[in-house]
Amino acid sequence: MCAKKAVGVLGATGSVGQRFILLLADHPDFELKFLGASPRSAGKKYIDAVNWKQTELLPEFAKDIVVSECKASAFKDCAVVFSGLDAEYAGPIEKEFKDAGLAVVSNAKNYRRESDVPLVVPIVNPEHLEIVGQKLETAKKAGAAKPGFIVCISNCSTAGLVAPLKPLVDSFGPIDLLTTTTLQAISGAGFSPGVSGIDVLDNIVPYIGGEEDKMEWETKKILAPLSADKSTVSLLSDDEMKVSAQCNRVAVSDGHTECISLRFKNQPPPSLEQVKQSMRDYVCDASKLGCHSAPKQTIHVLEQNDRPQPRLDRNRDNGYGVSVGRVREDPVLDYKMVVLSHNTVIGAAGAGILIAEILLAKNYI
Amino acid sequence: MCAKKAVGVLGATGSVGQRFILLLADHPDFELKFLGASPRSAGKKYIDAVNWKQTELLPEFAKDIVVSECKASAFKDCAVVFSGLDAEYAGPIEKEFKDAGLAVVSNAKNYRRESDVPLVVPIVNPEHLEIVGQKLETAKKAGAAKPGFIVCISNCSTAGLVAPLKPLVDSFGPIDLLTTTTLQAISGAGFSPGVSGIDVLDNIVPYIGGEEDKMEWETKKILAPLSADKSTVSLLSDDEMKVSAQCNRVAVSDGHTECISLRFKNQPPPSLEQVKQSMRDYVCDASKLGCHSAPKQTIHVLEQNDRPQPRLDRNRDNGYGVSVGRVREDPVLDYKMVVLSHNTVIGAAGAGILIAEILLAKNYI
Amino acid sequence: MCAKKAVGVLGATGSVGQRFILLLADHPDFELKFLGASPRSAGKKYIDAVNWKQTELLPEFAKDIVVSECKASAFKDCAVVFSGLDAEYAGPIEKEFKDAGLAVVSNAKNYRRESDVPLVVPIVNPEHLEIVGQKLETAKKAGAAKPGFIVCISNCSTAGLVAPLKPLVDSFGPIDLLTTTTLQAISGAGFSPGVSGIDVLDNIVPYIGGEEDKMEWETKKILAPLSADKSTVSLLSDDEMKVSAQCNRVAVSDGHTECISLRFKNQPPPSLEQVKQSMRDYVCDASKLGCHSAPKQTIHVLEQNDRPQPRLDRNRDNGYGVSVGRVREDPVLDYKMVVLSHNTVIGAAGAGILIAEILLAKNYI
Amino acid sequence: MCAKKAVGVLGATGSVGQRFILLLADHPDFELKFLGASPRSAGKKYIDAVNWKQTELLPEFAKDIVVSECKASAFKDCAVVFSGLDAEYAGPIEKEFKDAGLAVVSNAKNYRRESDVPLVVPIVNPEHLEIVGQKLETAKKAGAAKPGFIVCISNCSTAGLVAPLKPLVDSFGPIDLLTTTTLQAISGAGFSPGVSGIDVLDNIVPYIGGEEDKMEWETKKILAPLSADKSTVSLLSDDEMKVSAQCNRVAVSDGHTECISLRFKNQPPPSLEQVKQSMRDYVCDASKLGCHSAPKQTIHVLEQNDRPQPRLDRNRDNGYGVSVGRVREDPVLDYKMVVLSHNTVIGAAGAGILIAEILLAKNYI
Repeated sequence: MCAKKAVGVLGATGSVGQRFILLLADHPDFELKFLGASPRSAGKKYIDAVNWKQTELLPEFAKDIVVSECKASAFKDCAVVFSGLDAEYAGPIEKEFKDAGLAVVSNAKNYRRESDVPLVVPIVNPEHLEIVGQKLETAKKAGAAKPGFIVCISNCSTAGLVAPLKPLVDSFGPIDLLTTTTLQAISGAGFSPGVSGIDVLDNIVPYIGGEEDKMEWETKKILAPLSADKSTVSLLSDDEMKVSAQCNRVAVSDGHTECISLRFKNQPPPSLEQVKQSMRDYVCDASKLGCHSAPKQTIHVLEQNDRPQPRLDRNRDNGYGVSVGRVREDPVLDYKMVVLSHNTVIGAAGAGILIAEILLAKNYI
Repeated sequence: MCAKKAVGVLGATGSVGQRFILLLADHPDFELKFLGASPRSAGKKYIDAVNWKQTELLPEFAKDIVVSECKASAFKDCAVVFSGLDAEYAGPIEKEFKDAGLAVVSNAKNYRRESDVPLVVPIVNPEHLEIVGQKLETAKKAGAAKPGFIVCISNCSTAGLVAPLKPLVDSFGPIDLLTTTTLQAISGAGFSPGVSGIDVLDNIVPYIGGEEDKMEWETKKILAPLSADKSTVSLLSDDEMKVSAQCNRVAVSDGHTECISLRFKNQPPPSLEQVKQSMRDYVCDASKLGCHSAPKQTIHVLEQNDRPQPRLDRNRDNGYGVSVGRVREDPVLDYKMVVLSHNTVIGAAGAGILIAEILLAKNYI
Repeated sequence: MCAKKAVGVLGATGSVGQRFILLLADHPDFELKFLGASPRSAGKKYIDAVNWKQTELLPEFAKDIVVSECKASAFKDCAVVFSGLDAEYAGPIEKEFKDAGLAVVSNAKNYRRESDVPLVVPIVNPEHLEIVGQKLETAKKAGAAKPGFIVCISNCSTAGLVAPLKPLVDSFGPIDLLTTTTLQAISGAGFSPGVSGIDVLDNIVPYIGGEEDKMEWETKKILAPLSADKSTVSLLSDDEMKVSAQCNRVAVSDGHTECISLRFKNQPPPSLEQVKQSMRDYVCDASKLGCHSAPKQTIHVLEQNDRPQPRLDRNRDNGYGVSVGRVREDPVLDYKMVVLSHNTVIGAAGAGILIAEILLAKNYI
Repeated sequence: MCAKKAVGVLGATGSVGQRFILLLADHPDFELKFLGASPRSAGKKYIDAVNWKQTELLPEFAKDIVVSECKASAFKDCAVVFSGLDAEYAGPIEKEFKDAGLAVVSNAKNYRRESDVPLVVPIVNPEHLEIVGQKLETAKKAGAAKPGFIVCISNCSTAGLVAPLKPLVDSFGPIDLLTTTTLQAISGAGFSPGVSGIDVLDNIVPYIGGEEDKMEWETKKILAPLSADKSTVSLLSDDEMKVSAQCNRVAVSDGHTECISLRFKNQPPPSLEQVKQSMRDYVCDASKLGCHSAPKQTIHVLEQNDRPQPRLDRNRDNGYGVSVGRVREDPVLDYKMVVLSHNTVIGAAGAGILIAEILLAKNYI
């Protein structure tokens, strides 16, 4: 039995950082040894630096880790570094880590659009990680040092959207029109201060800054094929796929609900039953690879007419499984359905952990 | 100054009935004199029959009205009878009232699909009331007694959907594709028991029985033209208009939020500014007729990017005005926007009152 | 008919300031002419300086008022200045205004403990304003200029607590033991950021910084008699009255609910019916003086066993009336009951307006 | 290793019944084999009879169990039968089971007041189960058949109240005055229909039928000593202890928060630190007996000033641990504190399971 790989977390005191820590407690592959945060926290024990606001208790092992500043030198022994940094800070820090030869799995948006940075929903497009594989291969052949790299986690609402699309595209060909209206949980906005109580009590906020734009282009990257040399990925063109998102913040703690509608390029489209069966049968690569956190059932197709519901269904497969319900014909496009995904698991920190497990399974770290 | 017209309310102890009563307190045209409810309540003073659950106090004038059973004979002196009856009971009762020569404005769904029954959102299609006008005219010419009739109030979520469409269709021609995803308040479901607390606390229920179907066909009736002889109205065909609705129940007390998207039949479509200006300039007929409850501004086009919000915007024009925000181009259809309407005012009892005011202004009652 | 008195509002862009502005729209006695805010806002039109977050629209008259810095010179023509300043800034600013001869009615806590500053719940202890009367009288006799003064509004939760106590103490003598457990609305915490959504969604926060202490001592000042020369007021001693408060933040937008229990010094205590009748019969001085905002019914004693409820009862008498329910014997002290008061009306800005109306009625401004 | 004991659940389709089933999945001591429900459900497979509304999925093992009517003959092989029946039905059914020689652990209120029926909070007063021991012993000596018996689970809000009192009474003697104001979750009210959404959205309901009375007398039974012959238990007298409860329903899914205050009979009272240490040190008998579900830490004494909070703290020790915070001196009684307990675990079904584990450990079943 191999020793666990040492890993680190950047932005460790924030909302995403705290969830990375929870998910790394008792992890069979990784041992969390290094925590990075702002200079204000650096030098303190983690328990003294953090305002812990999770429903699970702060794991014992993390309490006494001394927080570092976010410098690559302090994390040089990490097989992978998880970044929960705010976009405001993530840019130069993650670059420094990558340049220092480190593997970074980041929840920040800064590098998501780079064509040589994989933007990965681990239950959907782990094949984009081959960009990393190519890079490592090339360096190896050249006798160069193992290069660093960045892998980006998608936006939380994008993760739920693309999950059911993957088996459909695999089975029935491209989707050329796609609409989604989201009802998004507040946990994604963090808690300092996050969403104000007065904004969600007896209320809806029909706007989340930048979110619709992210959903619209990220979907076109995640569903796009790799370049022939597997070194980059370009967005699908508008001719290939049009995506329209409308995003709302609602009074839900965890779990994004999305009402989606789609049209297949190939007409006539598959039957309703074929659509459902395709999603039921889907086994993501992470599951095939035996990754620890991979869902047993990637997509749960629910038949009760009032499901999925966030409070009841968000924790399927520890939040790594996505629930789909109310799959039915759509008078305007081909099919409509309701998708529920756990925004802080498959949509954020949890996705990062599963990406790292895939990287490990592929010997990229 | 004319005497006020005597009116009655059926289903007076229920949620919709209570709101009819509130809206009729101090009404300049109508005097509420008769209340009908189940045999269990009949014979009691209203204050003893009702479990009053409104934010305003039970009006003094209503307390001592003795509740009748819902028989036409007890309401024969009413210029108009407002029905807040459950669909379970409304069918035969409303028919008896109509057959007895009474004017019924009903919130129940039972007769909405009848081609000779106007289905009216008073700020949108009061011209459908000409069906009533024709019927009265015909009877008058024939020297027959004044006939009874039923006018149906639309479903609450339909009302918000069609309001911004009316000026667009008037100005720019037909809309051939329309999608809406709703985030609906719980007040529409009444309170005995209505929506369960555990269903809306930290939760979304992505299903409301029958609601999507109603929205899809009601829209096609409300936006359809009268027949040449003004005696009936038929649904728009699928070729003329396709409508797709996805309905969700959320933790909001009052005010339905809808994320809608639409395509014009005539291409190229109007500009974004034309679309907004058309809605801003819209003055509904009820306002032109000087109806007491008509909104000062029928459609409020908001420019702040995070509006409309139900808690902040639902009470514009006492709930008779509809708010529209985030009007923008849609990558899939032509335009998308967020619509907010007050479900118990313009979507239920309030619509009934305004319909009756229009009937009065047109001398139909 | 007299001209309206010119008034000003400090902290005009904040939560309390916005409510002062709403309450001053169409006020029969006061005309809001001056608005003060931080240097960041000064020089701008109010509509450009404020992030308006009220359910009513920003009143037309206020939109174009140019915001000043909070300097007395800019407010010298005000009969009264309402301060919605944060405690962080209120201290020196309010002092400067008072020293400049201005009348200040403040929602800030800074001067509440001063023995020569009246701490007033206007439906409870307007007689404490005689401190102001004495000061004016003295200056007048001395031929001095009309002096400035500060009157403090109580903490929002204190207002609800003391309202039902006043008639009881007037009728039955001192209350020597008093406990209250509060369930407080979030509007009192403002909105930048105010209470975080994640803290109130499916949650209770059993702590509000400084609140319990304020309730415990403010009650002892508000219920205390003036000194013999009417120039000061001292707290009741622990021997005279012991107060214990436990404060919780709950998912309610407006309206503080308090479960209180009390013991009379004089034993045996009055009967349950005497206690209720005393509260029902209570007419506050502001009502007797005919003040515009004074409640028609100061205390509403509800007999339904599940009332008062914040959503249903908080707006009695436009928020100036207090609702009391479930008055019953207490196995530990004498009586227990539930009290509901509107925290932003009688507990904050609204109290300030009513205090000013009383000052006007008494010719103090 | 012994075979697991067969057990049954009555009221299996209801809210409490569903939780019994979840807690019995993979239980090391018990094997759930029998389910009882109304005649409407009898004869159906459980999966076809139940409207499953839990956040965890319906356990596989339960799906195919055929539901019986609630007749003792169908449950005769059960070592213990857990009753989640409504009070409306529980009376004669539980009696029939007891008379048939069965051991019943009931969540219903029907037999709680009987002096020979133990009313047990398993982390507080398992010694009251000696009433059962005596009964068994007596029958054994008489050579009679093993008698049936009923053990009652306390009301959910009582469980949280008495938990921290136990170590205090054990260490410092009787508590003679006790007040509690509760903020109770909605899950305790079930879901058909349970608490209405409109009652808890932006609202508090300051009343729960019968709850205050139950808390006041149940506390006096749970903290009372057994009779000398260990066959009965009588309530503490008012002279020994006075209890006052005020109960509120709030918008929380799970977890009752209680603001309590207490006075010790022995004066002067222990110090604040003694009070906290006593609770920290408390190890309940169930833990000492090694019961499977017993909490590792019975009472968690929290030092952060804004804890416990239901969303963050309700799941300590799988809901079997109670959290206490804000322990501080009380100006009116001796000490006040905030207590949080999980109403469906230690306050209902979970308590039943732990009681059965104790009965097993004591060889009473």
